[in-house]
Amino acid sequence: MRALAMLGIGKTGWIEKDVPACGPMDAICRPIALAPCTSDIHTVWEGAIGERKDMILGHEAVGEVVEVGELVKDFKPGDRVIVPAITPDWNSLEAQAGYQMHSGGMLAGWKFSNFKDGVFAERFHVNDADGNLAHLPEGIDPAEACMLSDMVPTGFHGVELANVQFGDKVVVIGIGPVGLMAVAGAALRGASYLYAVGSRPNCVMAAKEYGATDVINYREGDIVDQIMEKTHGEGVDRVVIAGGDVNTFTQAVKMLKPGGVIGNVNYLGKGDFIQIPRVEWGCGMGHKMIAGGLMPGGRLRMEKLASLLVTRRLDTSKLITHRFEGLDAVEKALLLMKDKPRDLIKPVVIIK
Amino acid sequence: MRALAMLGIGKTGWIEKDVPACGPMDAICRPIALAPCTSDIHTVWEGAIGERKDMILGHEAVGEVVEVGELVKDFKPGDRVIVPAITPDWNSLEAQAGYQMHSGGMLAGWKFSNFKDGVFAERFHVNDADGNLAHLPEGIDPAEACMLSDMVPTGFHGVELANVQFGDKVVVIGIGPVGLMAVAGAALRGASYLYAVGSRPNCVMAAKEYGATDVINYREGDIVDQIMEKTHGEGVDRVVIAGGDVNTFTQAVKMLKPGGVIGNVNYLGKGDFIQIPRVEWGCGMGHKMIAGGLMPGGRLRMEKLASLLVTRRLDTSKLITHRFEGLDAVEKALLLMKDKPRDLIKPVVIIK
Amino acid sequence: MRALAMLGIGKTGWIEKDVPACGPMDAICRPIALAPCTSDIHTVWEGAIGERKDMILGHEAVGEVVEVGELVKDFKPGDRVIVPAITPDWNSLEAQAGYQMHSGGMLAGWKFSNFKDGVFAERFHVNDADGNLAHLPEGIDPAEACMLSDMVPTGFHGVELANVQFGDKVVVIGIGPVGLMAVAGAALRGASYLYAVGSRPNCVMAAKEYGATDVINYREGDIVDQIMEKTHGEGVDRVVIAGGDVNTFTQAVKMLKPGGVIGNVNYLGKGDFIQIPRVEWGCGMGHKMIAGGLMPGGRLRMEKLASLLVTRRLDTSKLITHRFEGLDAVEKALLLMKDKPRDLIKPVVIIK
Amino acid sequence: MRALAMLGIGKTGWIEKDVPACGPMDAICRPIALAPCTSDIHTVWEGAIGERKDMILGHEAVGEVVEVGELVKDFKPGDRVIVPAITPDWNSLEAQAGYQMHSGGMLAGWKFSNFKDGVFAERFHVNDADGNLAHLPEGIDPAEACMLSDMVPTGFHGVELANVQFGDKVVVIGIGPVGLMAVAGAALRGASYLYAVGSRPNCVMAAKEYGATDVINYREGDIVDQIMEKTHGEGVDRVVIAGGDVNTFTQAVKMLKPGGVIGNVNYLGKGDFIQIPRVEWGCGMGHKMIAGGLMPGGRLRMEKLASLLVTRRLDTSKLITHRFEGLDAVEKALLLMKDKPRDLIKPVVIIK
Repeated sequence: MRALAMLGIGKTGWIEKDVPACGPMDAICRPIALAPCTSDIHTVWEGAIGERKDMILGHEAVGEVVEVGELVKDFKPGDRVIVPAITPDWNSLEAQAGYQMHSGGMLAGWKFSNFKDGVFAERFHVNDADGNLAHLPEGIDPAEACMLSDMVPTGFHGVELANVQFGDKVVVIGIGPVGLMAVAGAALRGASYLYAVGSRPNCVMAAKEYGATDVINYREGDIVDQIMEKTHGEGVDRVVIAGGDVNTFTQAVKMLKPGGVIGNVNYLGKGDFIQIPRVEWGCGMGHKMIAGGLMPGGRLRMEKLASLLVTRRLDTSKLITHRFEGLDAVEKALLLMKDKPRDLIKPVVIIK
Repeated sequence: MRALAMLGIGKTGWIEKDVPACGPMDAICRPIALAPCTSDIHTVWEGAIGERKDMILGHEAVGEVVEVGELVKDFKPGDRVIVPAITPDWNSLEAQAGYQMHSGGMLAGWKFSNFKDGVFAERFHVNDADGNLAHLPEGIDPAEACMLSDMVPTGFHGVELANVQFGDKVVVIGIGPVGLMAVAGAALRGASYLYAVGSRPNCVMAAKEYGATDVINYREGDIVDQIMEKTHGEGVDRVVIAGGDVNTFTQAVKMLKPGGVIGNVNYLGKGDFIQIPRVEWGCGMGHKMIAGGLMPGGRLRMEKLASLLVTRRLDTSKLITHRFEGLDAVEKALLLMKDKPRDLIKPVVIIK
Repeated sequence: MRALAMLGIGKTGWIEKDVPACGPMDAICRPIALAPCTSDIHTVWEGAIGERKDMILGHEAVGEVVEVGELVKDFKPGDRVIVPAITPDWNSLEAQAGYQMHSGGMLAGWKFSNFKDGVFAERFHVNDADGNLAHLPEGIDPAEACMLSDMVPTGFHGVELANVQFGDKVVVIGIGPVGLMAVAGAALRGASYLYAVGSRPNCVMAAKEYGATDVINYREGDIVDQIMEKTHGEGVDRVVIAGGDVNTFTQAVKMLKPGGVIGNVNYLGKGDFIQIPRVEWGCGMGHKMIAGGLMPGGRLRMEKLASLLVTRRLDTSKLITHRFEGLDAVEKALLLMKDKPRDLIKPVVIIK
Repeated sequence: MRALAMLGIGKTGWIEKDVPACGPMDAICRPIALAPCTSDIHTVWEGAIGERKDMILGHEAVGEVVEVGELVKDFKPGDRVIVPAITPDWNSLEAQAGYQMHSGGMLAGWKFSNFKDGVFAERFHVNDADGNLAHLPEGIDPAEACMLSDMVPTGFHGVELANVQFGDKVVVIGIGPVGLMAVAGAALRGASYLYAVGSRPNCVMAAKEYGATDVINYREGDIVDQIMEKTHGEGVDRVVIAGGDVNTFTQAVKMLKPGGVIGNVNYLGKGDFIQIPRVEWGCGMGHKMIAGGLMPGGRLRMEKLASLLVTRRLDTSKLITHRFEGLDAVEKALLLMKDKPRDLIKPVVIIK
């Protein structure tokens, strides 16, 4: 089969591989909608997860089941499915503890285009089909559903980590597609004032549509100062970090009230240390909790999030700025993600 | 001063009383907006809290501060304030445990028109002004803000008790004003399918505007059957009870999934026992949690909820079907609440 | 193979059955230690789960692995293992939601001697070996470890459901083996005053050894009155129900403070309704939470609890009042459980 | 009145001051038992909270009430009371949010020998007597109860922040008196393996008596290596930090499992940043939560912890290595705390 792979750090290309074998609990799917992710860019061009040779890329997909293992109960060939980026081993100790995304080791619930071949291929393999696939609901656009693989669950997990409550003041740092979903998630969870930090015009517009009450542009001054001014020196209840780098946490701690929570869902690719400012962290005693975590994957999560599309609580279409057709277009979409033109939020490729 | 009082069970009337004295932490206010509550009806005509003689009625108000005690720091005469129905003693052991609504004994955080005179008077007394009043934000209609005294915090507390999460299927039983706020709160907290149980046409319309995806009319068949059919036999994740009686819990348990939660905010005025059906409750082992509680009151809560009006996450105007003017009109509003004409959701009286 | 079975309601006997087949994720074990449970008695002589024909009884076991499926990674023939009474399907939607004990339907994580053959046989089958077995730690007596199958996790789950915190006053109703483990668990979780309700002398003695500060004998007066007197009319923070019947909840609600929690782990075999007293439940608004649930099973849970034996935080030996040898003795142990002589807490059978 | 004060950074001495005035909600007490704290040392000799002139030191005390304000309901002259180090304003917004220790600003619930005079005097003032004092239970040694002012609630709060559950593996870093109470608290909350990091012989002995299963001496090698070896490379579920400095967090993150929690109760006096190692923190996605906070103070907390002494769940006497008599001896006790002789854990001064 034909597939778009990482040939080595800094290099991608089309390769031929055998169709993967299907274990007793697994499924083989063909893609219907695919989207490249910033993580793919980090993986290939920054070597974020180390060297990989001829590893198929991609972890965001809606697909059609073409084969299932003999122990699979709820899926059959022909079913249209949403595929989560994170596909845990559900009987692992980590999953039993509620941290399925770390099944088999920290972050190891992330398998596609990390420990095994990804989804940018004519066929791809899904471990534990019953545990990890979700049926695509009738009437939902596969491109919009494809945002459920990673963008929505990651952004929403930031909101869960930050534990947003009715009437909270919330900052979301970063308004790429994940940050935008954090904005939507915070609004959908009862935030009142919602400060979105970013500057690209189409992202700013989307942030407002998704519920931001204020947009903070870091080019117009220190973001901590801007937030403190808007909150009359009190700071905010919650900060969701969906962009920036290891230094972003210093700002987040400074703008947070005692008793507040930081929820990070940004992959930190560089730097030795995240730096927590001692004094503003209350000399260790300020009850400013710092949480960060990979999105929960799996079937239940996908079903619940898909139900938000069906009931129109969430509209992912605003994320999709570029649509392509045919598997070959995945390369163009990937390079677009790499080049990040100013009008890009997220590209999706539809495969008929 | 002139006030509308309960003269005894079954009887109301206008009386003259002295203006209440102001303790060192307290405030005296004059009303700007007042609303009668179903509880006032229960209190007077059903004797729900027992006999009371010449007790001023009412616990929903927006007012203007006319006097404050010498220890009050954040309020001064002339301030316009939202007054919560529940005004706890914040240094009590119960409040320290997080259950301020039970400060001084179960339900004893509810003081207005229960243990002391209520707000339907030319002047009313608020204990612990700094702890219990909230400034009325600029530009907010006092009538709409008056819904924050009881309707919004009670409805939203049902949603908190039921612990609604992203994508949950939620039933709200009862769509009077509290139930409607539970519908709005569940939508604002990430519910997907939201089944509102009720039948009065204007409430049904409001429920849909507040986010109900389906309305279940008990006149069209058993509500458990209807919910089970709509959920393909699986039941729902959460049930908020905002209407009905002691038997409603039997239905709620039956329509709930294992691992689900019932959040009750309906005052149960009659019946010896709430009946939990043994088999459907998993013979005691089904993890169907049953919670019920009086709304949290106090200043922080009011400020947080008020911020939802300011940021337009919540629109309480749809609750207000009848507006009156002048203190005298409180009697008409109260009787309207008693008679419940079909087009009533909530009446408010504005006092200039 | 030879096995002790329920032949029908009210009848037990030894039968011959084929050794069960081992699926790809499963294990076949031979028993090393077995214990009958009160549930076995309910199953056979009260028909609690309905008619069963030639179903092998028993769900408490320590065993030795004799065969594993080809997908099993962490266990091999010869391994000595603790077998939990509850063996979930870990990739089910219920398990993904944190309620693995209800995987496949309410209570359906309980499979042994319910939906499939139990452990009172020369060989027994365990589904998902990696997910559900735990290695028996070196130096731990199999008889004592056998208390980890059901008695410890059930009693401790009552404490978890009741959410015991440092310094809480706790009542444990019922001091059979599960109740005794609730007493031990409450002490191990920071309870201060710990009121154990029971009357059998050896259970009373064990309750005190496990940490009860007071024993309440229902023969000496109403238990609510006794608890209220001991707490100077205030009631307690938590109630764990590990005995009694549907009426016990009425007492539990009455002795509980607002903001308190009831954690039930008692299987309720009879009665149409659990009755919650309306007035003492605060007319629906008292924040007296009612929770009840089947123990969590699975490997992580067993490993964690086993580590409490290894580190000597918990001593289960005091539960074991009768020890037998040889598979045949299981029948005698079962009948002992049925007859409940005054000196019985729990019998265990060792099979060499 | 006579009092031991900080005269300025680096200097202490006895001064004369007026007896403090008693507000309407307050109490004036005379000390019965007093203990100096490491914080007093930081305050005076490290200038941790900045310059203070003639500020009376001390925040750990058991006392006798000599005067109460007119609004005080539950205390009267002659009552013997436990005084918490943290005495919040209970009607503040922070307290209403559950963070009373930050009432009035981050850490501002700490008033004694911070914003106002402390307890090392013939008389001291307690704000909000009903909210902040607790009756000394009959039969409890005032010296032992004096450990409830700060040592016990701080150590136990580390355990609460780290959210210790049944069977968790827990590290406590630092085994001074607060760390020892964290060890006792972790054992009392169900930890299994409990690794105490420290080296002073009498602290090591006390750690074992309080429940440590292993003592890790940093002089015998890197503590991360030692913990990883003891846990077979898996790491632990929880880390409580009760000693060390800003670099200690780097070690804590490295020894923690994904899904684990760090609970810090160590006051960090120096360093610009707490450094969180990026890779071991899962590149921001490892679900290793970092929490740190000042102890909750107030009456309920003191009553709950005192009940653990009464029921003998906790024995604080092992902390007290030096006992003195008479107010004058407070100076000697303070200097002892400064010099930290090898046999010191905690000195207490009894004033008859």
